[in-house]
Amino acid sequence: MKKRRINEIKKILEKNDIEALLLITTDFIRDRNVDYILGTFLENVSASIIISLDEIKLLAPKWFEIKIDNSVKIIEIKNFFDVNTIKKEIKKFKKIGINKNYFPYTIGSKLRKFKLIDVSEELLNIRAIKDEEEIRNIKRACSISNKIIKKIEKEIRKNLSEFYIEKIIEEEIAKINHATLAFNTIIASDRRSGSIHPIPSYSNKKIKNYGIIDFGIRYKGYCSDVTIPFLIGDVPNKLKKILRVIKNIHDSSIEQIKPFLEVKYLFESANENVKNTFGFEMQHALGHGIGLDIHEYPTISPKSKNIFKDNMIFTIEPGIYIKNAGFRIENDLLIKNKKPKLLTKANIIEK
Amino acid sequence: MKKRRINEIKKILEKNDIEALLLITTDFIRDRNVDYILGTFLENVSASIIISLDEIKLLAPKWFEIKIDNSVKIIEIKNFFDVNTIKKEIKKFKKIGINKNYFPYTIGSKLRKFKLIDVSEELLNIRAIKDEEEIRNIKRACSISNKIIKKIEKEIRKNLSEFYIEKIIEEEIAKINHATLAFNTIIASDRRSGSIHPIPSYSNKKIKNYGIIDFGIRYKGYCSDVTIPFLIGDVPNKLKKILRVIKNIHDSSIEQIKPFLEVKYLFESANENVKNTFGFEMQHALGHGIGLDIHEYPTISPKSKNIFKDNMIFTIEPGIYIKNAGFRIENDLLIKNKKPKLLTKANIIEK
Repeated sequence: MKKRRINEIKKILEKNDIEALLLITTDFIRDRNVDYILGTFLENVSASIIISLDEIKLLAPKWFEIKIDNSVKIIEIKNFFDVNTIKKEIKKFKKIGINKNYFPYTIGSKLRKFKLIDVSEELLNIRAIKDEEEIRNIKRACSISNKIIKKIEKEIRKNLSEFYIEKIIEEEIAKINHATLAFNTIIASDRRSGSIHPIPSYSNKKIKNYGIIDFGIRYKGYCSDVTIPFLIGDVPNKLKKILRVIKNIHDSSIEQIKPFLEVKYLFESANENVKNTFGFEMQHALGHGIGLDIHEYPTISPKSKNIFKDNMIFTIEPGIYIKNAGFRIENDLLIKNKKPKLLTKANIIEK
Repeated sequence: MKKRRINEIKKILEKNDIEALLLITTDFIRDRNVDYILGTFLENVSASIIISLDEIKLLAPKWFEIKIDNSVKIIEIKNFFDVNTIKKEIKKFKKIGINKNYFPYTIGSKLRKFKLIDVSEELLNIRAIKDEEEIRNIKRACSISNKIIKKIEKEIRKNLSEFYIEKIIEEEIAKINHATLAFNTIIASDRRSGSIHPIPSYSNKKIKNYGIIDFGIRYKGYCSDVTIPFLIGDVPNKLKKILRVIKNIHDSSIEQIKPFLEVKYLFESANENVKNTFGFEMQHALGHGIGLDIHEYPTISPKSKNIFKDNMIFTIEPGIYIKNAGFRIENDLLIKNKKPKLLTKANIIEK
């Protein structure tokens, strides 16, 4: 059990005058807060966890196998949606904290007699600050990514297809224990790069022109996330200019990062730059936290209420998309000892 | 757009006197019914879909890139939980069908003025019968699995670690376009095999004794799922006996499969066999449908209401677990022309 994490959650209970927090994770609704609290990356496992000031209960099927210290009381549950057992275990409470977006309606609709209070924001805020173990795992995910970046940079100078690039990444994962893809790799060359999140539909044709490679590695549950833009052969000067602007925003954003800076300020500064140069605004956030989820706090967007702090890990990923073309450069950073530290080495590939 | 699938859904609307079906899929709540209806495997994409008798609306972020024919009206949504846009699009209806277990509480709790009707069972029933495209993809996932099984069978005769076996599977995936893991591989040797779903926590130590390898391949969205039990070196006769019984149940279950047979009967027949031999009952279902999800209908359990039909694809996976040891053998089958057809070739490995 992760004591610091539990203590942070108890503070949420006290602050919100909530008696217990109820979190549910299943095969198809993955609430990584459960993994976070247990300190284990759960895969193919469903469980509910109830944290009150007095005790922690884990409701799980009887074949649940994780070794947990005896600060946690394990209660057998028949299936993920065994509401009766859940109800029984929370019956002495009135106000229950939940992670609303990840909470199944099946269960929520049967807990009408309880007051359900959404504490998802607070949970996101706790997880935005990484502890040593988390930093170690993300650093490892990043170093695996760096190895792959180097390989892609080297091999893209041959004539490669989108599929072949995907396979380079998977081959590297196949060599390293505890490593998997964090998400399905996005490779979009030529016109398809104009979409922000193109659906993977790769081609065996040789890549020419331009595009992006966006991939993530999960190491012991923790994610990295990088995007490499590339230019191959003769591409219009207009696209080269876009890429120069992106690189410039990427670098100057990183230079500005420091503790106590408002996160939204960093977005606004980059957005101003895009607006002045192109006459339109940024089409997505400038970056996002990474951890057990691929999108965590801080979200570097105009609505963010976060401020940068030591031990935050997040991406910086300015992107510009026009009709039939788009580029993005994305790297992962850690703020440590009040300074931003680049963990990944994504850069423009020009050939 | 998949016309047959849409027609089946319209029948659900009419049968349940529902005016529209509302399905939501996000990064962390994956409702594969959306993929099923669109006929595309969505990854890293959030979308809502509203199907009424008159029209189909897809609510998606503006960078949604899938090519959809013009039978679908696309409506821009700001984020997954943009309830106002959802409300606006369903405002003319009173009774709305939902997939309850996959429906986020955030949205459900804001739709109180609508009557939400759970049609998850009906959706599962539609998807239990595969169409030609689905069968083609699952068959391909199975043939990739067979290649891997052969390789494991050959290589396990060397001295392998759990990690090395995991890597054999990942190496094969890295060679094949459109192929990924369907779930994190489960490899449990020695005492850990006593758990049904052991958490992946592999070892670099050479495997001796006994255990299982349970893995799945996803090809163009569609899953295979196999388990290979193994015995290496000198193992107690008791365990060999367990494995013989499992193989016997596996084979005789397959022999009994035919259209119009009640699914629960197949479970009961296997369970009877386990009870007579060991004095305890089966600890999990005898099998489950596979498709876009790794667990679909029919669930071969005592509670199943399904009957076997042509074009169903499912696993048969009898398992027996005692303290500190467990075995399971799992293969995938298709019922075609009234006969069960084995799609995979998992078998006991004895060395």
